[in-house]
Parts: sequence; structure tokens; C-alpha cells
Amino acid sequence: IDLSADFRLKLETTYSEWYGEKHQAPHLLKKTVYGLPEFHRKEIQKASLIANPGCYPTSAVLALAPLLREGGIDLDSIVVDSKSGVSGAGRSVSEDKQFIEAHEGVKAYKVASHRHTPEIEQELSFLAETPLKISFTPHLIPMSRGILTTAYVHFSNSISLEKVHKLYQKFYPSEPFVRVCPAGQFPNTSHVRGTNFCDIGVAVDPRVNRIIVVSAIDNLVKGASGQAIQNMNIRFGWDETTGLLTPGFVP
Amino acid sequence: IDLSADFRLKLETTYSEWYGEKHQAPHLLKKTVYGLPEFHRKEIQKASLIANPGCYPTSAVLALAPLLREGGIDLDSIVVDSKSGVSGAGRSVSEDKQFIEAHEGVKAYKVASHRHTPEIEQELSFLAETPLKISFTPHLIPMSRGILTTAYVHFSNSISLEKVHKLYQKFYPSEPFVRVCPAGQFPNTSHVRGTNFCDIGVAVDPRVNRIIVVSAIDNLVKGASGQAIQNMNIRFGWDETTGLLTPGFVP
Amino acid sequence: IDLSADFRLKLETTYSEWYGEKHQAPHLLKKTVYGLPEFHRKEIQKASLIANPGCYPTSAVLALAPLLREGGIDLDSIVVDSKSGVSGAGRSVSEDKQFIEAHEGVKAYKVASHRHTPEIEQELSFLAETPLKISFTPHLIPMSRGILTTAYVHFSNSISLEKVHKLYQKFYPSEPFVRVCPAGQFPNTSHVRGTNFCDIGVAVDPRVNRIIVVSAIDNLVKGASGQAIQNMNIRFGWDETTGLLTPGFVP
Amino acid sequence: IDLSADFRLKLETTYSEWYGEKHQAPHLLKKTVYGLPEFHRKEIQKASLIANPGCYPTSAVLALAPLLREGGIDLDSIVVDSKSGVSGAGRSVSEDKQFIEAHEGVKAYKVASHRHTPEIEQELSFLAETPLKISFTPHLIPMSRGILTTAYVHFSNSISLEKVHKLYQKFYPSEPFVRVCPAGQFPNTSHVRGTNFCDIGVAVDPRVNRIIVVSAIDNLVKGASGQAIQNMNIRFGWDETTGLLTPGFVP
Repeated sequence: IDLSADFRLKLETTYSEWYGEKHQAPHLLKKTVYGLPEFHRKEIQKASLIANPGCYPTSAVLALAPLLREGGIDLDSIVVDSKSGVSGAGRSVSEDKQFIEAHEGVKAYKVASHRHTPEIEQELSFLAETPLKISFTPHLIPMSRGILTTAYVHFSNSISLEKVHKLYQKFYPSEPFVRVCPAGQFPNTSHVRGTNFCDIGVAVDPRVNRIIVVSAIDNLVKGASGQAIQNMNIRFGWDETTGLLTPGFVP
Repeated sequence: IDLSADFRLKLETTYSEWYGEKHQAPHLLKKTVYGLPEFHRKEIQKASLIANPGCYPTSAVLALAPLLREGGIDLDSIVVDSKSGVSGAGRSVSEDKQFIEAHEGVKAYKVASHRHTPEIEQELSFLAETPLKISFTPHLIPMSRGILTTAYVHFSNSISLEKVHKLYQKFYPSEPFVRVCPAGQFPNTSHVRGTNFCDIGVAVDPRVNRIIVVSAIDNLVKGASGQAIQNMNIRFGWDETTGLLTPGFVP
Repeated sequence: IDLSADFRLKLETTYSEWYGEKHQAPHLLKKTVYGLPEFHRKEIQKASLIANPGCYPTSAVLALAPLLREGGIDLDSIVVDSKSGVSGAGRSVSEDKQFIEAHEGVKAYKVASHRHTPEIEQELSFLAETPLKISFTPHLIPMSRGILTTAYVHFSNSISLEKVHKLYQKFYPSEPFVRVCPAGQFPNTSHVRGTNFCDIGVAVDPRVNRIIVVSAIDNLVKGASGQAIQNMNIRFGWDETTGLLTPGFVP
Repeated sequence: IDLSADFRLKLETTYSEWYGEKHQAPHLLKKTVYGLPEFHRKEIQKASLIANPGCYPTSAVLALAPLLREGGIDLDSIVVDSKSGVSGAGRSVSEDKQFIEAHEGVKAYKVASHRHTPEIEQELSFLAETPLKISFTPHLIPMSRGILTTAYVHFSNSISLEKVHKLYQKFYPSEPFVRVCPAGQFPNTSHVRGTNFCDIGVAVDPRVNRIIVVSAIDNLVKGASGQAIQNMNIRFGWDETTGLLTPGFVP
């Protein structure tokens, strides 16, 4: 179970394009399973190499998956706007992560160039069964942990909130770590802090034919090591929630 | 100069639709000037009633205006994703503004239903000279003040970052309170905190034919009373920056 | 196990003096055990009414107990300066707990008049086996949870850091929830957040013949319901740490 | 006007004791004026070298000065407990100033060993006209700027709050940057943020014969460059408030 980004992208060329260097072990890419349990549980059970997903892709793919599986949306209309706490940028000491820089400010960064973009596109393309591209903008906000992702999708035919909400409930019927909010309610990162949950809320805006999906995860749990433990549990046939219902946490 | 939302919308019907009640003084709507100095300076000079803009509309309209004036974009593709500090929700005491509720959490609210939506649409339609509708999602983030707006627009013909950046520089050549960031740089709310500035950064994502515009304001200055002072200065023929270069601030 | 302040003070008169009203059930005071397990474990095992300690007293009494038991200090020199996160003030909605009021500010409150003062004095007097009074000042700081208490005590005869540190280690040899920091190190509330631990660090300032003790607790766990659970565990003969090693937490 | 600590201590030996190295220009120490305008205004007017005070000493000395000038207190009873925002630790990039380390935590640091201790003692001794020593503990709290200092002093003869409050009002009758709070009120760092003010509140605790003084400054203004500007204004005969009534501020 690899927590780095080395084996998340299936294509060697996509890796070198976004990471700026030649892949060092391309022969392993075919054997690798992308470790998002909700969509690859069966392959994970037998995998010899599991690529643990990035934090942003986890929040974005879980949010959009039901719509892409269902179809009926404009595949070139997807906008993913994510807001992350400071720990998402890692533990390395740097000026922009200093308290007086990060506190009481919000900014976008790596606009139209973040390396998680192709990872999100790969998984959404897999779900839609056709290649697609998205707009993705990450933002840094003044809190320690948590990612809120707001995704926008245009659709052609009229659709009701009730129908979309049911679609989401049916899509995640018994997932231990995905919770679909009641219709009209939306997630808050503080409600998933220190947990392996991904909370998802949906809205339909009939004025502009757009569905808005909001998801919240803790980037340090479901977005990182918590999901790695979930993958370990699956791989070794243990209860999937082992060690994940009350994880300790720092910071 | 009215800081409420009563006279911002030109159409009585739009007002009653979004604010849920009949307008009490519809005869004044025609006389009212929408007080966004960058686009209505001449009318403000002679106005008898100036409707001071809302905080989200100020950040969104300043961000998107150059693109709408210029044309060449898909008018039904506009997505506006805004992140606001807690003071944006007013001074009234409420549970969701309590420190322990707002701290270390981010959430979307009034998804597809915020009252600033028609105000943004009205001004963007005015600039585009044709009616349009947008998707708008406000978010609450754990800081006292500031709004960051990230706007997404799809375009048909190929366009370079250089060209878009020049368009913005030319559009705001001598505005005292709009600053266009150098190409490749993006604003941070902490850089406009306590000021009447609106900072704007642009990106072009050729992979998906989308322009991303990020703007930052202080919701309590350019987004509220600071802009009201700017309007007062214009109305009375004073230097437009009077009292606005080093405003004191609480909180 | 009563989480209110009603039965913490042994003397009816002290209660009415600090709480401004007559005690409603004075006949129960004699039966009540003050639920600080570290000093009253045996009585708690048989108690019919346990008064769960206040958050500030928990942090102050655990910090100062070894010195008072040992003796050799000036009993009229004790100064207790505490810093609490906002949740210490309760869940009720009020202006001074609003985000924009509490954020980016620190203040002292109820200076020389906080109701936890007699509670601290009662327990320190019990430990010293003689009545004493202290100075106590609580402060509100911009974080959700945690209390740091810094206590100052004057002593007459020369004493080394090594000796004081050993005294603390010996005083809490096998307490499950008290951790004495290595000599020269001091606690941080972020290290006890979400836990039932009380961390304690000590310093000796020979220039002024003063010992400085710093303690950190999470006011919502060891300072409140966590300690109540610890008392329940003791009362019913269960393992004292049951349910307390990885408590979930909000906010 | 020197903002470093090099010339704040009058005695070469005290400097080498606390700063761990030999002073490089001891011949300048006699010429230097300690730049706390409230007590050395006349000397500053003619000074050729002004040592701008440290942030903690500014807050502590302004808080305690009236009591030391007046006399009647126990000079060996002084405890100074200070709480500082993160910017007090400078702009250098370090792990303990990273957002995820500093956020949602409070700690004491350099307990009984901070270099500002002899600086506070020097000025208090000057005011008391006799040598004295204090206990000083600095704390780091999760906010960008501001220092709150809580000082404790024991007195022998009975004294009323009214009398102490009047003493403070008379001591600072026309200081442009010292504001004595009404009796019973205490300062908040958020009220002096971005300003050159020092706010001071006093309490008397007759139970323990102790006076508690609380002061608040912005460590980056009155505690640093703002005070340097104040000194410059005095030195050159300009209005003392020039440039200081609405200073811009970052962060």
C-alpha cells in the first residue's frame, strides 16, 4: 500500500507529463490497483500493489461517481473547486505554511496545474467509461485539517433534487465510510474531522441546469492514512472498519 | 447611499421572488443607481439614491466584467464559487457563528439559493448586454473577514493567458481600488484585509477551454462600508480615495 | 456523578458566598465526594454522590498537589494563571463567544472573582492540611478546547529542579491520566486535545526562589465528561481507562 | 533607533549573562537611552542612540510602573505572565511556528529563562529606585499578533480598587498611547490590534492582598516598529502621533 503518488496514474506518459520526470518502475503500473475501496474493493482484495489515492481525488471522485455512472450529464462541464486545510500541504516547514501567513487568509494555488487533476480525471473517466477532462482548483484555508469539495455539473434533461438524492443513496447503500446527507443538507469538514468518513450533499439548480455536489473528508484520514488502513483491512480480509472508528489524532 | 439590499435589484418581480416579500417602494427603483463605481461612476455622480452592492456581487462582478464586456465566452457556463469569512454573515449573535461552531470547519450554505445570485446576474447581464444566469455557491470559512471568489467560464475559441491578462489590465487601467495581479499570480484575502482593494488574478486552462478568475476583497470594506464611502466621495466630487487608504478596523 | 458545581464546595457558606444563592440541598454536602480520582479514589469507590470537578480546578490542583503535600513552600504566595479555549465558556450562544469576537484576541475575565477560586482553595487546603487562599485569573484564548494553567509558588529554602521533578514523578507514579513531562519540557494543550490526560511540567527559578508549574488538559475531557467517565469506572469497579483512550470528539 | 536587543541592557555583564556572548560595543551603552517614551521622553529628545524596547517589557513595564513609583508593594512578589501571538517569535520559518503546530494549542516557553526578564527588571528597578527581580513566563497562543500581560503584585497595607484605579489614571494623564480602562474593565488584544495603544486594567483582590494588572499591546506596533516611530517623532520634535493613528498592517 503505497501512500505516494507514484502508482496512482495508470499511464506512464500522464505521469511524466504532470510530475516532470520519467517513471522509474513502469512495469509495476499494470499490477497496481487504485485504492479507492468504494470502486475497486474486489481488486484490492487480491492486489500486490495498492496505490493509495490523493486527498483531493478521494473527495472529488466520491462526490461525482454516482452522476458519472448514471450518465445524462455534460461530461465537458465538470468544475471541481476544493478547499483544504493547511495540513494538506504536508509537514515540511515552509513560509506559506507559517501561522502568520496562513492565518486569516484564503487563496487559490496551482490553478489549472495541480497534479491531482489527472488522477481525478482517470477515475471519473473509468466511471463514465469514456475519457473526460475537468477544471480543478485547490484552495488553502486557515484550518488544520479537512477538505471540502464543491463540484458543478451541467445536465441536459430536466432532473429533480429528489431523483438525484435517491441516486446517491442507492449508489452508496452500505458503504461504511460514505454518508449521504439528507436532501437539502450539506456537509461540514468539522463533522468528519478525525474520522474516515466522506459526507456528501447534493443540490439541483433548475435555473441553470446544474447539479452541485459538496463533499467533506478529513484529508489526514480518508484522504491519506485512514484510507490506507481501510485498504489494508480489505486486503487481509479483516473487518473494513478495524482501527478506524475512533482514530486518535494530531494535530 | 443605502447599504441594505432593498434597491439593488432593478426589477420589482426579481426582488419579490428572491426576498419573499413585496417591494415597499417600487417607485424608487428607477431612480436608483447600483453603486459599483467601476461601472457606474458617472451615474453615481448625480444619483439621488445609490444602492451599495452586496459583498459577493462586488467580488464576482469585478472578477468577471472584462470577459463579459469583451465577449467570446459561453454565457451559460459561468460558475461562481465564493469563500467568505464569518463577518460576512453579520453581527447578529447565532449558533453557527459561535467560535466553536465556525472554527476548524468549512461548509457551503444556501447552495443554489443565495439572494446575491440575481444581483450578480443583473450586473453581468448589463455588462454582456444580454440576459444570463449563473451558478453561485457561497462558503463559510474560519476567518474573521475577507471573500475569495473563484469564477469559471468556458470559451469557444482558443485564447492565451497573455491575451486574457492584457484584457484585464486594459479594462482596469486607472481604477484606484482594483489591482490586477501579474500573470501567474493569484490574490490572497490577507493581502486586501482592512483595505478597499479588489485584487484579481487570471488563469487559462487550454485543456478544457476554461478561464479561471480569482478575486479577493475585504467584505467589510470594498464589500460594504468602504465602498459606501467610495460612493460618497464620488457623489460629492471628492477625491475617490478619501478616508480609504488606511481605514481603521475591527475586528 | 454530578457535573454541575452544586456539590463541589464542602461548606454551605462558601457556596452561597460565591454563587450568590442559598444551597438547596445542604444535607447532601457531607455525603458528597469530590471526584478528583488522583486524590479521592478510595472514597469514590463507595460514593453515593460524586461532584465532578470544574475544569480550572482540575488543572490547577493536579499541578500544585505535590508541592502542597510536600510542604516547604509559602502558602500565601500561590498565583494561578489559566488560559482556556472558548468551549470552556459553555455551549450557550453569546456575543463574546461569536467567532469575530473571540478570534485573534486574548483577554482576562472575572479577574479575582471566578467561582472556581474557592474550589481550588478547598482542594489545595485539603492537600496542605491547612487553610490557604490563592490568586486565580482565567483568560479566554482563541482556540476551541484546552486549558493551560501556569502556577507560581514561592519557597524559602533552596531547592533544585532535579529534586522538584523527582517529587512530581514520585507523586504520580502510576496514575493512568497524569503525565509528568521530562525535566525542562513543558506541556502544550494540543498534545492533550481529545484525551483525558493532564500533562505537567515544572521549572525552578533560583533567582527569585519560585517554582513554576505548567499543566495542560482538555477542558471537555479531563476537565469535564471524561473525568466523569473516569469516576464512573472507579465507582463501578471497571478498568479506569474504559472508554477513555480514544474518545471521539466534537468540536 | 535600534530595534535589536543590543543596547537595551545598561550593564555589559547582564548582557553577556543573558545573551551568552560578550557585548561588542560596550562604550555605547552609557550614551544609550531606553526608548520607552512614557518614562524617558526628555532623554529621547536629545538621544544619539535609542534602544527600542522589547515587546514583553513594553507591556510589563507600562502595566507595573504606577505601582512601583508609588511604593507600598512587596518588591519580591512580582509575577509577570504574558501571552503572545505567533508573530512575536519573528518572521523566520520554523516548525513551531507552522500553522498546524501553533493552531489550536497554547504553551509556555523559555520558562524562567527568557531574555526579556532582565530588561523588565532593569526598568522596574529604575522606577522603584531599588534593584528587584521578577518571575516572567511567556506563552505562545494561536493568534497572529498581540500580547496580553497579567501581572501580580502583593501589597502589605489595605488598598481599595478605587485608589489603585485613580493612581493609574493620574500616572498616565496625557499619554497619547496609554489608555487606562474604566474600573472593573480589562483589555483585549483585539482592541489594540493594528494600533500603538497600550490598554491597562486593574483589579484588587483583598482576600489575598494582591493587585492584578492586565495590559494589552500589539507586539508589532507599540511592541516594535510603532514605538520606534513614536521615538523618532519625539527625537525630531514632531507630533508624537505622526503616522501612528491608522497604521496599515500585515499580517
